[in-house]
Amino acid sequence: MPPADRPLTILTDYGVGSEYVGALHLAVVRVLPTADRIDLAHDIPPGDVRWGALVLARHAPALPGAVHLAVVDPGVGGSRRPLAIALDDGGFLVGPDNGLLGPALDAVGARAAVELHPPPTSAPRTFHGRDLFAPAAARLCAGTDIALLGREVDPSGVIRPAIEPPEIAGGTLTAEVAGRDRFGNISLLATRTDLIAAGLGSGTLVIEGPDGREFRATTGTHFADVAPDGLVVYEDSNRVLSVARRDGDAWGLIGCAPRSRLVLTAHRT
Amino acid sequence: MPPADRPLTILTDYGVGSEYVGALHLAVVRVLPTADRIDLAHDIPPGDVRWGALVLARHAPALPGAVHLAVVDPGVGGSRRPLAIALDDGGFLVGPDNGLLGPALDAVGARAAVELHPPPTSAPRTFHGRDLFAPAAARLCAGTDIALLGREVDPSGVIRPAIEPPEIAGGTLTAEVAGRDRFGNISLLATRTDLIAAGLGSGTLVIEGPDGREFRATTGTHFADVAPDGLVVYEDSNRVLSVARRDGDAWGLIGCAPRSRLVLTAHRT
Amino acid sequence: MPPADRPLTILTDYGVGSEYVGALHLAVVRVLPTADRIDLAHDIPPGDVRWGALVLARHAPALPGAVHLAVVDPGVGGSRRPLAIALDDGGFLVGPDNGLLGPALDAVGARAAVELHPPPTSAPRTFHGRDLFAPAAARLCAGTDIALLGREVDPSGVIRPAIEPPEIAGGTLTAEVAGRDRFGNISLLATRTDLIAAGLGSGTLVIEGPDGREFRATTGTHFADVAPDGLVVYEDSNRVLSVARRDGDAWGLIGCAPRSRLVLTAHRT
Repeated sequence: MPPADRPLTILTDYGVGSEYVGALHLAVVRVLPTADRIDLAHDIPPGDVRWGALVLARHAPALPGAVHLAVVDPGVGGSRRPLAIALDDGGFLVGPDNGLLGPALDAVGARAAVELHPPPTSAPRTFHGRDLFAPAAARLCAGTDIALLGREVDPSGVIRPAIEPPEIAGGTLTAEVAGRDRFGNISLLATRTDLIAAGLGSGTLVIEGPDGREFRATTGTHFADVAPDGLVVYEDSNRVLSVARRDGDAWGLIGCAPRSRLVLTAHRT
Repeated sequence: MPPADRPLTILTDYGVGSEYVGALHLAVVRVLPTADRIDLAHDIPPGDVRWGALVLARHAPALPGAVHLAVVDPGVGGSRRPLAIALDDGGFLVGPDNGLLGPALDAVGARAAVELHPPPTSAPRTFHGRDLFAPAAARLCAGTDIALLGREVDPSGVIRPAIEPPEIAGGTLTAEVAGRDRFGNISLLATRTDLIAAGLGSGTLVIEGPDGREFRATTGTHFADVAPDGLVVYEDSNRVLSVARRDGDAWGLIGCAPRSRLVLTAHRT
Repeated sequence: MPPADRPLTILTDYGVGSEYVGALHLAVVRVLPTADRIDLAHDIPPGDVRWGALVLARHAPALPGAVHLAVVDPGVGGSRRPLAIALDDGGFLVGPDNGLLGPALDAVGARAAVELHPPPTSAPRTFHGRDLFAPAAARLCAGTDIALLGREVDPSGVIRPAIEPPEIAGGTLTAEVAGRDRFGNISLLATRTDLIAAGLGSGTLVIEGPDGREFRATTGTHFADVAPDGLVVYEDSNRVLSVARRDGDAWGLIGCAPRSRLVLTAHRT
């Protein structure tokens, strides 16, 4: 048990700078004025639980012992369970049981979980982030025993989001788009290992976009591997297979939408 | 007087992540390096003083004793007074006297107010947030007596924004749109009590949008009360009457603009 | 040497609320849990090194002794040098040597610089912000000697971005657009001194936009100097010559794009 408070990371789809994010911070500070609050991400597309789960899972392991508050919760007020999960690294996850917490749980490992006691029935039913999850997370930062926050449940029953593996066949890799970043870099549901397994680990590729248009791309390790405006297929900083356009917007160029599928093949000269 | 610094919340229309927000934080840290700064909201539409006032008023009471720095100030450099207000909960409001502070003052109650001493005449005239309001707020966090910051004025003279009450007549509720959130949820200038007074407290409603199109909606308590893409009329987490589209954007669907009016009636089967 | 940690300001083009910003914060907290992190700006247009450099240069001097972490790094993974620079005010700059750090260095003055030791070759090559710059900045906050972070280089060799001075001739000021803020205020590569040198220091002006359309504007000191929707040419809060539209968006009205040129002349009645 560390002598100081645990740091608190916060991930939501509330939109950056919105009053909802502010209200979460206020709710934390009410419980624990000294809380060390870190905004992990607030630009998850509204309701995109899977993308939120992937983002959480790749950053949570970077700060062992921290409390990770995550709220992408389109079913707020419905039947999904509110959870707190004790991780094997000494940290905690707090959020709705709708798939959002599963990948981070699997990335770190869990030793216990509780279904949070519901907020007072007098509380509004549409802002569990502020009224339920943030206070619980703040208490965990302050050292409260997780067993006091709810009813014990089995961590293995925590919901995992559906993540379709890529299809690899005949020199072709077909992968679903997981999300995008501000630059328009495309994150795929695939790894560099998948690319190699498809025989596409080096050289020039062709990417077939969702509308059938084809784009030439280069396999590389960083943006400087291609000329300006060129496409590069690379393992990103989170070890995820990605497509970027140097000094440009690959997502827009290729015409991606959430859950689009890209087909990668070798370029035949 | 608390032993530690007071926390500082910051609300602006500066746009999230902008250098203006950064400059406010720097100005605070220059005066009080240990200041506990909380970004309440920075996505107020540019110059929308009334919406900023409503957002401030519903969150300020959540953190008694805090200093609330608020800057939505389209008239900066003009004749509006720069104010600091001592609240009944031990906290303070700091910002321009253009309507922005009135509702929060009324929500908490005030015991004193000062018109801030102007910044040095050598300072720029267009960034009172950085050059006047932020340093004053930081001094209040540090425990400076408000009387040292300016000339005493009467809190009852602080400007309140014009907030038109809804019209209730013949089973119809007509309410102005106050603002929207990132999800496209519509915040109305009305309460659930108004809805009940109009005889519309339950069942299916019809919403007439600004362009005359009509939309069916359900009264409910949370988004899960309606099917995906359905509209729900509900009391939001701030006790404000709101319209949301489940998993969608009610604002865009209905075609709202700032200060649009919506007409709600019962659905006749 | 101050007894407490140095504050850390962070400027990027990562987009506000993005996981990249969150990852930077996590990387800092891993090294220095007590770091006082201040988001200076994250809305620099992607890859706009020059605008990032100008924003950094005008705010860095406001907090002497701070560490300024700046990452606008379209050439990440390429040959540009990663730097830490010891400033004359006791603070530090950390970021890529692509022009981003030059103007802030010149604004404050530098006494030493190092080319940072590269990250482990096992690290990804596309996120030096997280894997190289943030840890280095955190170490400087904690008091680590800059000489331990890399190989000494000459501060005078740090790259400065190309900043074209305005053309002043025959009562005309022609200036390049440097950037815009959230409100649509236009920041020019010119000063009020340039305006006066062109004989345009007062009165009514005509602004010729990039597409040849002309707009009448007033010279002033603040937005309240013009009627609603009117254009004002003024020295902004950073002492930069700017064009604003009262209660509106000058950038959109005039049709600016990055690096557009505006031509200012006196209005002939």
